[in-house]
Amino acid sequence: MNNRSKITVALDVLGGDGLVALNLAAARQALDADPDLAILACGPGSEIGSVRDEWPAPLGARLKIHDAETGLAADAGPAEALRRGRDSSMGEALRRIGEGEADAVVSGGSTGALMVLARHLLGTWPGVDRPALMGALPTVRGTCWMLDLGANLHVDARRLHEFARLGRITVSLLNEREPVVGLLNVGTEPGKGPDLVREAGRLIDADRDLNYGGFVEADQVFAGRVDLVVCDGFSGNILLKSAEGAVRLMFDEMRAHLGGSLCGWLARPRLRRLRDSLDPARHNGAALLGVRGVVIKSHGGASTAGMAHAIGLAAREVRGGLSQAMESQFRAVD
Amino acid sequence: MNNRSKITVALDVLGGDGLVALNLAAARQALDADPDLAILACGPGSEIGSVRDEWPAPLGARLKIHDAETGLAADAGPAEALRRGRDSSMGEALRRIGEGEADAVVSGGSTGALMVLARHLLGTWPGVDRPALMGALPTVRGTCWMLDLGANLHVDARRLHEFARLGRITVSLLNEREPVVGLLNVGTEPGKGPDLVREAGRLIDADRDLNYGGFVEADQVFAGRVDLVVCDGFSGNILLKSAEGAVRLMFDEMRAHLGGSLCGWLARPRLRRLRDSLDPARHNGAALLGVRGVVIKSHGGASTAGMAHAIGLAAREVRGGLSQAMESQFRAVD
Repeated sequence: MNNRSKITVALDVLGGDGLVALNLAAARQALDADPDLAILACGPGSEIGSVRDEWPAPLGARLKIHDAETGLAADAGPAEALRRGRDSSMGEALRRIGEGEADAVVSGGSTGALMVLARHLLGTWPGVDRPALMGALPTVRGTCWMLDLGANLHVDARRLHEFARLGRITVSLLNEREPVVGLLNVGTEPGKGPDLVREAGRLIDADRDLNYGGFVEADQVFAGRVDLVVCDGFSGNILLKSAEGAVRLMFDEMRAHLGGSLCGWLARPRLRRLRDSLDPARHNGAALLGVRGVVIKSHGGASTAGMAHAIGLAAREVRGGLSQAMESQFRAVD
Repeated sequence: MNNRSKITVALDVLGGDGLVALNLAAARQALDADPDLAILACGPGSEIGSVRDEWPAPLGARLKIHDAETGLAADAGPAEALRRGRDSSMGEALRRIGEGEADAVVSGGSTGALMVLARHLLGTWPGVDRPALMGALPTVRGTCWMLDLGANLHVDARRLHEFARLGRITVSLLNEREPVVGLLNVGTEPGKGPDLVREAGRLIDADRDLNYGGFVEADQVFAGRVDLVVCDGFSGNILLKSAEGAVRLMFDEMRAHLGGSLCGWLARPRLRRLRDSLDPARHNGAALLGVRGVVIKSHGGASTAGMAHAIGLAAREVRGGLSQAMESQFRAVD
């Protein structure tokens, strides 16, 4: 663990659907929860300033402002990000890491834009070509991390092995213990699945830094069989969104089934808490792994609490010493 | 619609975890529910006969026996199926279609074995190389059909187009209206996703027989946005099992949250019914499409009611005239 506790998170205030108001409400919630945190708000300075003026002075003192008047569109692609992104609120936030003004970045903006700008402005670790997105899923035992969540649709076996290494470093810092790594497949027997997945299994199994738990099927992820699941970005997106859709369907049907009854009414607050704890959409904050710096992608439609959770995740990764651990791992191996 | 109503379903009595007792209990349930159905039980004759002797005579008269003493192992692969499968209960059941003794086959045995034996013993429609598996998912509006569910891990755009054609013929008979066909992807905008999925979208869109609804994301499947979803077998397996895992997790947590309360106790029967209607594992019966004949794969661990549901699905496909519709479609095009 890193002993450094006072940290600064740069926040892309123009990213996400909620824009300035929601992002600043989340910043305030995160500052309230963590007295050793400062936030560098990157966005329209006068607008941010007038919101901050309403805050209690001790909180306001920990919200700094970096002026950036333009935001990127929520659907901005890589080409547009490279053309206009450098001076956007997202680009400015990322450059604060390079300038030593921030330890991490949180943005609810376009995933494609964040990927390409982070890679361009911060660079990647030696041997890592493209960043990968890692997020958390609810399980019977707590949490299972999974990557890639959609940033890399095409992968080979070497890439899946790299995801396992990137994820393992991060999850071991977050959980403070060595994670069991599983590989997503359509069966658990060694002969199952596509060639590339079986080849990736051999690479991960042979890597002495990794505690390999074998193939996992999608339902076993929620049973908490492993701590970290590795897959291509297409499958990761399908797994995550399928679970979201199924959970949403269940709660809609449950309202229809129990809604009129006294029991349904009495159970409502409990069921809502349960949904909040289980809906994968609310486990907000995906780590962009492979870039030289702590970067967290927030869901575009995240709630205030969701955005505050993403800021907290950034702080945990910084305090865990993620960048230092990545640097020593990727320098040692390559 | 086909007017033929008296039909015979060949049942692989040694397939599935429940073996003879469960399969025959399911057969009895299916016969009870459908007076125009006969079942040809393929399995150990004396064992089946002694169970049938306990049934009321009118039901027993509709259970015929075709003796087959050996079953295939639940994990039998394609090679073993070709070597030893022809005379197994599964192979005998499939051959009853060719002999004109049965209109359809239902088996809870190994998927790989059923695929290869059905292809080998019945053949495929012109232009169709390998069969695909289509199953049902629960949605807000009722049911969405999806293929492939895991029989084809590697596909190209032409294959996905073929899945759409196979699925459309079947679902239009089952639903008695033209289905809206969606293509599983990681986003709905036309530029999203892997090349092969975008190319498949162009092929399906250009096919005037298909009512194309565009790309669908995994969560939208459960919202009932389309009637039929097409995808490769790896993604289909991930989607299905992810939803199963999430639903199971939710009910486990709900029991833990509400279990001790009076409300939880009162709501229990309703919640159990809800789970039964939503758990994808219980929407039992996947249609093996592309082979010359109606073949239904049942989940190996299906309940008696689940197996009876699979037999009912076979009967619906036969009565809908599936084989005739496939024949005219695949003769007309190729």
